Amino acid sequence: MSQPQLTLYTYWRSSCSYRVRIALGAKRLAYTPVYVNLATGEQRADSFREKNPMGYIPCLMVDGEPLIESVAICEYLEERFPETPLMPKGIEHRARVRSIMELMNAGVQPLQNLNVLEKVSDDQAKRKEWAAHFNAKGMAALEGLMELHAKKGVEGRYAYGDTFTLADAFLVPQAYSANRFGVDLARFPRVARAYASALECEWVKPAIPENQPDYKG
Amino acid sequence: MSQPQLTLYTYWRSSCSYRVRIALGAKRLAYTPVYVNLATGEQRADSFREKNPMGYIPCLMVDGEPLIESVAICEYLEERFPETPLMPKGIEHRARVRSIMELMNAGVQPLQNLNVLEKVSDDQAKRKEWAAHFNAKGMAALEGLMELHAKKGVEGRYAYGDTFTLADAFLVPQAYSANRFGVDLARFPRVARAYASALECEWVKPAIPENQPDYKG
Repeated sequence: MSQPQLTLYTYWRSSCSYRVRIALGAKRLAYTPVYVNLATGEQRADSFREKNPMGYIPCLMVDGEPLIESVAICEYLEERFPETPLMPKGIEHRARVRSIMELMNAGVQPLQNLNVLEKVSDDQAKRKEWAAHFNAKGMAALEGLMELHAKKGVEGRYAYGDTFTLADAFLVPQAYSANRFGVDLARFPRVARAYASALECEWVKPAIPENQPDYKG
Repeated sequence: MSQPQLTLYTYWRSSCSYRVRIALGAKRLAYTPVYVNLATGEQRADSFREKNPMGYIPCLMVDGEPLIESVAICEYLEERFPETPLMPKGIEHRARVRSIMELMNAGVQPLQNLNVLEKVSDDQAKRKEWAAHFNAKGMAALEGLMELHAKKGVEGRYAYGDTFTLADAFLVPQAYSANRFGVDLARFPRVARAYASALECEWVKPAIPENQPDYKG
């Protein structure tokens, strides 16, 4: 299949964009980045809201058609480009990978979203305490979930066994956020191991926030 | 295929459980309910955390094996019981249905989760204002998304065209929450129409909070 034209609306610090950058990299799909500066509110521009009325990134344009929401984008990539699978075979295994994805996607990330932190407080220290609280709660649950999976015989280098999956694409950005918010990942050894393994993958490195051209440290 | 033994850990007011009740009903799957009283903290019991370390419902037991996270459960049901499909054919259509699901699942619901509201404030009025703020923001975005889909030719009685899909299973509980938090759905006519259409479906009625045996008005 010839590759369609892929354009990704992204921002270095956006954890949801980071997921899609990892998935695109893992599938060896080339894309054109468009940088949306969340810090200056570019995501609220009308021209962007025409693509995503929520005003959130990422947005993946596929031959000019916008796809939004990182889970929907990653499932699309999996269905359209199955050659390098990022989901295991077996319905129950896929359900478990999706449960890890959603624990990160719905259980943690929304609570450290910029527009939520703005509503929490004007005080940066209070925002950080809030984000750290929910990040740590989610990471503890992820550690517990990985332990449950290990009891079922699925254990390895990555988030779900010894093969890199979409679960890793969702774990990595939240582990990055843990460091940002001062949550010590050493408390969660399975999560920390999976994070370290993923960072060694050559398709993850180009997706890392610090390696983005729009990075501002 | 013979039906496996399905047990659903549910609570009448849990919007994520409501989604799964709708999906099970739409697929004509019988299940045994186990009621978890979120108001008294039963979800935090060790016996439940062994199934979901996050301490969240729903949890669907399939022949004794726990599946967690409502999106993962619904995708599992779709893969295992494809006879009554709740996803459209066509990769791009499925991506759009999933974007509606995630707008509800990650964009709105986590911000009105009980354990989040507990962190927001001890004051019930402040909790309601917070939940209403994010519910209204999400419903406005959903209205905009449905308008975008209409421009692409997908418009009808339901959340995504004229066929009931998982997008409806995720829209309905958030529309129910809108009413609970005092958000006027009349501001969002496409959402309101889809909600009204879904409530007429015979498989939605048994899933409605007021129709649950554990309902406490």
